[in-house]
Amino acid sequence: MSRVAIIGAGPSGLAQLHAFEQARLDGAAVDEVVCFEKQSDWGGLWNYTWRTGLDEYGDPVHGSMYRYLWSNGPKECLEFADYTFDEHFGGPIPSFPPREVLYDYITGRAKKSNIRSRIRFDTAVRWVDFDEATETFTVTSQTRPDAVTRTETFDWVIVASGHFSTPNVPEYPGFSTFPGRVLHSHDFRDASEFAGRDLLVLGSSYSAEDIALQALKYGASSVTISYRTRPMGFDWPAGIREVPALDRVQDRTAHFVDGTACAVDAIIMCTGYRHHFPFLRDELRLRTPNVLYPAGLYKGVVSTANPRLLYLAMQDQYYTFTMFDAQAFFARDVVLGRIALPPAAEMEADIAGWLDRQNTLTGPMDDIAFQTDYVADLCGRTDYPAFDLDLVREHFVAWEHHKDESITGYRDRSFRSPCTGTVAPLHHTPWWNELDDSQARFLRP
Amino acid sequence: MSRVAIIGAGPSGLAQLHAFEQARLDGAAVDEVVCFEKQSDWGGLWNYTWRTGLDEYGDPVHGSMYRYLWSNGPKECLEFADYTFDEHFGGPIPSFPPREVLYDYITGRAKKSNIRSRIRFDTAVRWVDFDEATETFTVTSQTRPDAVTRTETFDWVIVASGHFSTPNVPEYPGFSTFPGRVLHSHDFRDASEFAGRDLLVLGSSYSAEDIALQALKYGASSVTISYRTRPMGFDWPAGIREVPALDRVQDRTAHFVDGTACAVDAIIMCTGYRHHFPFLRDELRLRTPNVLYPAGLYKGVVSTANPRLLYLAMQDQYYTFTMFDAQAFFARDVVLGRIALPPAAEMEADIAGWLDRQNTLTGPMDDIAFQTDYVADLCGRTDYPAFDLDLVREHFVAWEHHKDESITGYRDRSFRSPCTGTVAPLHHTPWWNELDDSQARFLRP
Repeated sequence: MSRVAIIGAGPSGLAQLHAFEQARLDGAAVDEVVCFEKQSDWGGLWNYTWRTGLDEYGDPVHGSMYRYLWSNGPKECLEFADYTFDEHFGGPIPSFPPREVLYDYITGRAKKSNIRSRIRFDTAVRWVDFDEATETFTVTSQTRPDAVTRTETFDWVIVASGHFSTPNVPEYPGFSTFPGRVLHSHDFRDASEFAGRDLLVLGSSYSAEDIALQALKYGASSVTISYRTRPMGFDWPAGIREVPALDRVQDRTAHFVDGTACAVDAIIMCTGYRHHFPFLRDELRLRTPNVLYPAGLYKGVVSTANPRLLYLAMQDQYYTFTMFDAQAFFARDVVLGRIALPPAAEMEADIAGWLDRQNTLTGPMDDIAFQTDYVADLCGRTDYPAFDLDLVREHFVAWEHHKDESITGYRDRSFRSPCTGTVAPLHHTPWWNELDDSQARFLRP
Repeated sequence: MSRVAIIGAGPSGLAQLHAFEQARLDGAAVDEVVCFEKQSDWGGLWNYTWRTGLDEYGDPVHGSMYRYLWSNGPKECLEFADYTFDEHFGGPIPSFPPREVLYDYITGRAKKSNIRSRIRFDTAVRWVDFDEATETFTVTSQTRPDAVTRTETFDWVIVASGHFSTPNVPEYPGFSTFPGRVLHSHDFRDASEFAGRDLLVLGSSYSAEDIALQALKYGASSVTISYRTRPMGFDWPAGIREVPALDRVQDRTAHFVDGTACAVDAIIMCTGYRHHFPFLRDELRLRTPNVLYPAGLYKGVVSTANPRLLYLAMQDQYYTFTMFDAQAFFARDVVLGRIALPPAAEMEADIAGWLDRQNTLTGPMDDIAFQTDYVADLCGRTDYPAFDLDLVREHFVAWEHHKDESITGYRDRSFRSPCTGTVAPLHHTPWWNELDDSQARFLRP
């Protein structure tokens, strides 16, 4: 039996524990699995915390989650094939749930088995080394708060620590003398803080879009979104506008590259995240921007630098929980020897094929097809239950159109489950008018 | 020649580099010294940054410094005996300088020699191990942003990473649903953010006192300070009041243990810092609360667990730069073999003597005498230049009285230098009316 370390008990780490557990239930001889989780509970980003910056034990706060977050994609596109929404909630629910509902769903599957006992909570991985001679990893971890250091040997390391926790924070001239709050979306928690204020949002991706809408919904006087390359171009509600790139800030005034300017009270940088693994040395560390297919990972999972080191969920994501499941089942089967890794050259050639195709992608529709094919490729290699991936792809395409039609209304749509065929009911209140994001309110008929 | 690693190039790390440099200038054979500094420049906390939470490379922001910070003690109590304020500024300056002026002073001494060349900037120490067989440390560091990992061997490690960087952040019921900003003073940057707002400040030490005053000075509507044990009891200006401990928060309303309540817009926790060394394993790590004499350090510097591991500036501080100098000269002489460490039992007995006395301290006056004696003990063991320590002690006592007389006026006082005898001129503007904290404005006649 070999020993497997999983770093992180968020959605991808839980998917990995679940995958091993399924094999165990099927009678397989399963390796010894230890999951290290820095937080005191599971769920990763979905485990909301009011904390920002450093946590109660002095380590970086993992969470980037904010209050009033609703799924920005249909839940039907992230449904577990082996644990459906119908099964968890006992009946159909609307397509765009708030955070608490998705957290309940993810952890619901985890609670069904014994996987919690394999997680060491409040335990941070400090350093991982690989010994070429013995072909084993040493993983040094520290428990918190008592800070007991422990160094152990593992045959496999699966990195499931996510890549939406370490903010990418650029600097603009004038930030150091701006007389208001300057923050990254990683530290954004409650839109009410900005009620009555004029906000500047930097960015043009999901965070910028969603935080701008949230801020307005919860009372901001105005939101100015500044883009570097091109505007998102949605039909924004009154109070939100897009302007070109920020040039500099002078006192309270933001100056943009087109020569225009406006006074703002706070600046929120929705400028993305970094793949950050401070516990790994260069040779082991994945270095990649946020793309659909990071170089150096066979099947998007196995490090070619060291095939006993696996990474989950390091892709830019249309697919989320479903893709993590597909990767986790694949990773499990590699560890269990059910999938034999091909020779290095063959792995590189496979990666090259995906990277070549990635270079030809011209926009969201191409991206969706690409990631659908990637997930399908993985699913076909394991016993992960079949589901209607073509329907998911169609859903993503429809969703993109819905967003173009109405950025405040796209969440008031209904989708059909690729697992059960269930058609989601409409939510009782239009999203734009719904200020209560509690599960109790959401599940009310 | 042995190799010495210094972790951190803030005031204490710079004091250590300076101490070695002085020995070198005096013709001593000095060991190879490498200083690791995470930030891109020196000065530690005094190197102001607008950043909060995680820095540009994803590591915790070291700085706890905020805009408009003025020294809260007389500069005469922290004057370098071998580089006076008169020497640096070419003449007398007032006793309570703002941050920029003190930064200029600290780095001014450092610039006089070649010590900058010994600092590896943008280099974070990730892990330190000790090999009992070879009696050497391995220090693993990573450069940023390129993230090159390097593991090197050292005979001595001097930890100078400070202990005012990792916030102690308690949780109170209701924080997770408070509809405003909740922050620790570590993340406080610009009081203007809170203009027109009602603030709740938790704490009863220097940060609470100073941030409450700052916030009011820069336009807060009101500041309510909540204490756990006893109020600071100063004669606060209108707009600041002290109330008993926080019990809970409900929506915007803070409820205190005496049954009173008030609505607040933001909560600032001035709840102190933790000694945090995530790069050290248990056996090596100093574990202490913030006290005048941490257990386990001979002469407050040498780790009894491993006498080749030294710590600087880990004490609660009345004395600051002067004490760091005294410690750095002592540490240097231990490393150079000029000071022989006594047997373990003798070191423990020496520590026990200080700890016994620490247990008898009843308040600030005792504390001041205690730390004066500690600094005097260190200074007497090295060639650090003599200065009038009795005068410094008297200054601290006078300063405590001044604060009791006027918490907004104590900075408008003048002190005499223990090094040069120079009597500081009064600042041209009373501190409470002075909104401009620039060096140019401060040095204007």
